[in-house]
Parts: sequence; structure tokens; C-alpha cells
Amino acid sequence: MLLLLSNSTNHGSAMFAHAREALARFFDGREVLFVPYAAADHEAYAAKAVSAFAEAGVSATPLPVGDPASAVQGCEAVFVGGGNSFRLLRELQRSGLTTAIPEAVAAGAHYGGASAGTNMACPTLRTTNDMPIVEPAGFAALGLLPFQINPHYLDPDPGSRHMGETRETRIAEFHEENDVPVLGLREGAWLLREQDRLTLHGHTARLFRRGAEPVEYGPGSDLGALLGG
Amino acid sequence: MLLLLSNSTNHGSAMFAHAREALARFFDGREVLFVPYAAADHEAYAAKAVSAFAEAGVSATPLPVGDPASAVQGCEAVFVGGGNSFRLLRELQRSGLTTAIPEAVAAGAHYGGASAGTNMACPTLRTTNDMPIVEPAGFAALGLLPFQINPHYLDPDPGSRHMGETRETRIAEFHEENDVPVLGLREGAWLLREQDRLTLHGHTARLFRRGAEPVEYGPGSDLGALLGG
Repeated sequence: MLLLLSNSTNHGSAMFAHAREALARFFDGREVLFVPYAAADHEAYAAKAVSAFAEAGVSATPLPVGDPASAVQGCEAVFVGGGNSFRLLRELQRSGLTTAIPEAVAAGAHYGGASAGTNMACPTLRTTNDMPIVEPAGFAALGLLPFQINPHYLDPDPGSRHMGETRETRIAEFHEENDVPVLGLREGAWLLREQDRLTLHGHTARLFRRGAEPVEYGPGSDLGALLGG
Repeated sequence: MLLLLSNSTNHGSAMFAHAREALARFFDGREVLFVPYAAADHEAYAAKAVSAFAEAGVSATPLPVGDPASAVQGCEAVFVGGGNSFRLLRELQRSGLTTAIPEAVAAGAHYGGASAGTNMACPTLRTTNDMPIVEPAGFAALGLLPFQINPHYLDPDPGSRHMGETRETRIAEFHEENDVPVLGLREGAWLLREQDRLTLHGHTARLFRRGAEPVEYGPGSDLGALLGG
């Protein structure tokens, strides 16, 4: 079971406030281990997240510092917070969580993520928006899904005079090099995976496939086709 | 000698048009090898760039496909075009140019770059804005300068409701992990390095150092202090 949020915080709102009901229903009384590795200050970030989960009626604890892989093994639920995806992946690799988390999920643990934590559920981090501030041992991520997500998906601003690539151009560049679908999750949206069902909630998303026109999906859409066979 | 442009093209303008005089003066009759590796279609990109150089009175030829490292050895000048920095670095590594270009520059070749090509002149690609669409063998770049550049530097938009990181936040994340100055080059700006002189032209730049307030520089500024020594 996966719950993957585009973003932790909507503009003008408190952390997780836009998705409180979804978080409470998804974790359903399970104790959640919160992984703060995408931030520089793990302790402060975990404290903030634990408090935001409490507002949603979800009981969470920071991932222990000592032996995080053992803590994840056999846990009921894990949530990977947002921040910098390159830093996050490096820390997941160093701590053995790139193995421990997929094993726990295969054994029934519920996985939640926001932003960088949502990116980690994909095969690789290749559709992150983040700056590569550190070098992970490789780009392979947790592979809990067979397609890529672009969190914080942003539509082009027709009035912009900036010449940097738009998000859509960046995803087109990804498809020049890779043949994997990319789901652009707009802020406020999340994906819910229950067994072989995959549904979109909260806001809209834009699906990009190599060589095809992008397709729009609204809240409630069934995206199960992205799970393949 | 280095000429490093934030961007190839200003909004509403032709490729290189904003920097024609600077390009002509910098290359000063030298034959320029154009490296198109940041784009997917090398041939089309090189043809476009060669034509844009001609408008500036600069004679350029596409880097040969066969043995690019030999072509770079002993060349008079090289220009690395913009596009995706991850793809560019991977191709520079595969073709042996991560060694051949620094050697040619040490032997007196003039190096020009725009956007991703400017990023490559830095120690690493860690301050790129690009999506990591492919995985290079490592993040080390050409190391022609001892500090990092962020091309297409963009000021925060105070009216934005988007919750993705601003450019300044991304550079702050870089400084959580690295103690190397980052020069944010706004579009329209370029750096000129002649021996131990480093000067800013065309537009403004914002310098970020770990633990310090950012500092603004205008066209004509002497940035030689960034060269150390």
C-alpha cells in the first residue's frame, strides 16, 4: 500500500493539512516511522513532521538514529519526508534503507511519501526537480512503482521571459533518453495504491509517455494501467 | 581564457545575439570547435550554433563524430553548448573530453560555454538546474574554475504560490553540504577569465558563500577574489 503526495504543504496551509483525512485512513492506526533524511537537520524535521501527523490523528515516531534498517524491518508503516532527493537517496543508501524499505513494503508495511519521498518510490530519481547537491552511489531508488513521478508538477507560465527549461521541456528531455511514463503530480494531488488499484486524489495530474501527447487526469481517476500487467 | 555565458539566448532574441561582441573579441579569429553533447540531436544543434556564431563573425565547426578527443587536443578554441547538464557530462566522460578539454585549455585553448557548458567549467555539476535524466559516471566536471556557477539564476517570485524550492533555497541546500562559493549568473550575464583576472559582464550576478549573506555584483565587477591564490 502506497500513499504518495506531490507536496507536504499547500501554499498558505499547515504541513500535511490538505491530506489529513487521506493520511489517517491510509495509516489506520498503524505506528509510522518518519524518515527525515531529505533535510539537513534530521531531528528538527522529524519533530515537525511528528507533530503534523498528530494533527491528522496519525501516531508517528522519528526513525531511530542507531540502527535504522533494523527498525524498518518488520515495521507497520514508514513515511519518507520531502527535501532534497539527492541527499535523501544518498542517506537511504548509506543506512541500508534502499533494501530494508522495499522488503518491509513487500512484507505488508504501508509506505507514505511526500515530494522527494514520493520520488523515491519510483524506479530512479531521474524525474526529481532538485539540485544535485551531493552525489548518491547511483540513481536507482526504491522501485515500489514501475513508472516515474514528477512531484510539484508546474504548468508553463505563458508570461515568463525566463529562458530556463519549463517542467514539460525537462520531461521531454527525460523521454529523449528513457522510455518510462512520467506522471506530473500537481501540488495538492496524491496517488493511492491499494493492491492492483492506483487512483489519483486531491488535484489533477498530467501523464507523459514517450512519443505521445500528454494526457490530463482529474481526482478520482483510475491509473491502474500504469502498474502494467 | 574562459568566456562563460549564463544562457545562449535572451528572451525574444536570437541565439548568442546578446553576446556577439564579447564572443568575437574572445575568440579573435580562432577556429572554434562546437560541442553539441547537451542536446539529443547533435547534428541539428551544431548546425544551429555554427550559424549563430557566424552572425557574430566567429568561425565554428561541429566537433567531429569520429575521434573528438583528438580533435580537441591542440585546438585553438572550444565552445560547449547548453542543454541538459547530466547528458552533457555523460557524453564528455564517454568521449574522453573530461580529460582532453582541461588539457587543451591548460595548453592555451580558449574555452567558451553557455548554460550547461558554463556549468561544466566548474569543479562539479552540483549547481545545475537540470533534471537528472541520465546518470553520469560521477559529478566531477572540467574544473576550469575553483568555484561553482548557477546559470540562469532566477530571483524568487514574491507572488508565487508554488511550494517547490526557490533557486536561493536550492543554493542554501548546496551550502548545507558543500563549502564552495556559488555565483548565480542572471540571464544575459557572462564571466570573462583572462589569466588571473575574472570579470562580470552583460548583467548582474549574486554570490552565495556558506554562512554569509549573498552579495550582488554589477557588470564590470572584478571577481578575481573567487580565483583564490
